[in-house]
Amino acid sequence: MGDESIGIGILGTAAIARKNIRAIKLARNGLEVVAVGSRSKEKAASYIKEVEGADGALAYGSYEEVLDEPSVQAVYIPLPTSMHLEWVQKAAAKGKHVLLEKPIAMSNEETELMVKACSEAGVQLMDGTMWMHNPRALHMRSVLDDARAVGRLRTVTSSFAFSGSEEFLKGDIRTAKDLDGLGCLGDMGWYCIRAILWAYGWDFPHTVQASPGCSFTASDVPLHISATLLFDGDRTAFFECGFDRAPVQYLEVAGTSGVLRVEDFVIPRSEKTAQFQVRDGAFLADRATRVSQAAEERTVYLDRPQETLMWETFGKCIRAIKAGTSPEEWWPKLAAITNRVVLAVEESARNECRPVKLV
Amino acid sequence: MGDESIGIGILGTAAIARKNIRAIKLARNGLEVVAVGSRSKEKAASYIKEVEGADGALAYGSYEEVLDEPSVQAVYIPLPTSMHLEWVQKAAAKGKHVLLEKPIAMSNEETELMVKACSEAGVQLMDGTMWMHNPRALHMRSVLDDARAVGRLRTVTSSFAFSGSEEFLKGDIRTAKDLDGLGCLGDMGWYCIRAILWAYGWDFPHTVQASPGCSFTASDVPLHISATLLFDGDRTAFFECGFDRAPVQYLEVAGTSGVLRVEDFVIPRSEKTAQFQVRDGAFLADRATRVSQAAEERTVYLDRPQETLMWETFGKCIRAIKAGTSPEEWWPKLAAITNRVVLAVEESARNECRPVKLV
Repeated sequence: MGDESIGIGILGTAAIARKNIRAIKLARNGLEVVAVGSRSKEKAASYIKEVEGADGALAYGSYEEVLDEPSVQAVYIPLPTSMHLEWVQKAAAKGKHVLLEKPIAMSNEETELMVKACSEAGVQLMDGTMWMHNPRALHMRSVLDDARAVGRLRTVTSSFAFSGSEEFLKGDIRTAKDLDGLGCLGDMGWYCIRAILWAYGWDFPHTVQASPGCSFTASDVPLHISATLLFDGDRTAFFECGFDRAPVQYLEVAGTSGVLRVEDFVIPRSEKTAQFQVRDGAFLADRATRVSQAAEERTVYLDRPQETLMWETFGKCIRAIKAGTSPEEWWPKLAAITNRVVLAVEESARNECRPVKLV
Repeated sequence: MGDESIGIGILGTAAIARKNIRAIKLARNGLEVVAVGSRSKEKAASYIKEVEGADGALAYGSYEEVLDEPSVQAVYIPLPTSMHLEWVQKAAAKGKHVLLEKPIAMSNEETELMVKACSEAGVQLMDGTMWMHNPRALHMRSVLDDARAVGRLRTVTSSFAFSGSEEFLKGDIRTAKDLDGLGCLGDMGWYCIRAILWAYGWDFPHTVQASPGCSFTASDVPLHISATLLFDGDRTAFFECGFDRAPVQYLEVAGTSGVLRVEDFVIPRSEKTAQFQVRDGAFLADRATRVSQAAEERTVYLDRPQETLMWETFGKCIRAIKAGTSPEEWWPKLAAITNRVVLAVEESARNECRPVKLV
């Protein structure tokens, strides 16, 4: 590890960590995976051998040892949600910055405790919502902020689903009540909710209400959830998520004068390019025999994966803290408000779709 | 008019009739517009002069005179919904077949009376849902019926909206409570609901529930409506319609193994071609760094407009009746069940989004 590198420790050997370890390796501001902890040292060692970008990392037989490793300045926590509070608190207590996988918490109290722990320890907390770091998001933002393009926003619609195998639905972490009790809502709906908040410029919904027809797995975690979010100014949003059907991952923002649509907003079809579509407000032409709405496809080119850009942003925050500034409060705040909406939708879905008011 | 032609009378000079008069002209089974009735004979005459396909038609200063015209065998009724019952009953009493614009009725009682009147008179009743007659619908049906393509259906989503001008929202028939009190729900949501019923093989929802955030115009007709429909077998549907934003008109059917999507299901971008997309069930590839789902664009070619194909179907029914068969019961039934769901959604939207059970 070079003098200027930031050492990252990985807690656990989750599948999603593989993508992130590779992403860290590709980062251009000196991040390096220096330790991997698992419940057995052997498992950690064989994981390091196998995973692209993990070479050279130290293998530890516990998460504690990773936190105690002096070269570790930040940790990546892809552990089940039920373990987040414990390990974020422990990491913060040891002065380690935290990149935490979503959903971040099973309750708003847990969120508060984690945010507080990191804030008091002066460490950065950030969640793993990678699509936000794709330059496409910035391009889409500029379209939404252009008064002539989409106009005044009216509705945001988002859907994210995939078809979980029988095995997945029975045994995966994401369907185990005591590990990740938010099921598809925490795993996929999280992204839709974040996208809705993003589209509406981080305004907060005053009411959320699950739609009828929500379903739960045999283990009682959300299997298919849809909900409406209401915002001031007659703005609405609807999202749908599920482990119960073929992949869909779209975001559509409809305004008074145009529509922005992206078909692969969470995980793009390619690491090198990302598309989105902007449609104008034209409707009927030639005596209503056809629709003349123009759809312009825009392409954004990437020279490194969106996950790498996320890690670079996280790295920048850490470097700024090392240079004397406070942790960036924006990232924990985004994580907290997203999780809060996730929990409110769950509350509605579990209570006969009653509206849940948010302040 | 040739001996074999079927004479069509037009009740009123609505804008939508222009498209249909042209469509009738293009029909290949001998349909002909022979009369146009308006509240003044002059208006009817100038309309005939101006509209493509209306040349040669007789101008009448009342709807009654059109029904009394011996060369008229069928009528097209694009009048406001509040006038449907009266004019369908009068047309049926005169033995005229009826092609009726949607929404067909302001109540289920009105629907029953219209269906009964036509049935008893032995005349065909059919609504103007033109997209169903686009050959694309048949192609899409064959995809949904292919067990390997989309698989078991789970969710149908549909949206149809356009941005109504201030003038439109204040003064158009479709926003006048006493003329077309169902607003965007009758005008646009009708198509979404029909598409949902179509996708689910004409199964009927057991429950419908409007989503919060529905809004109404100053004249108290639906301005923006969204709702969930629940079907047996854990199948759900969601639609959204409105006069309040840029044009959107999509239908998406998600199953366990694939997704069918069409972006312009009501009024295609071209009269000559119609596209839809079929996506497979593939999801993550290359260690979750990209999505590998394949999307196949399918194109259907048309040699005449979808409205013409609708009129040809209507004409075939009339010819069959003239040859001695009974009216086709399927078309009035489709119109009735679609209208019933429209009314149930309105009931829910006007009653704090309470679920409305349907038998």
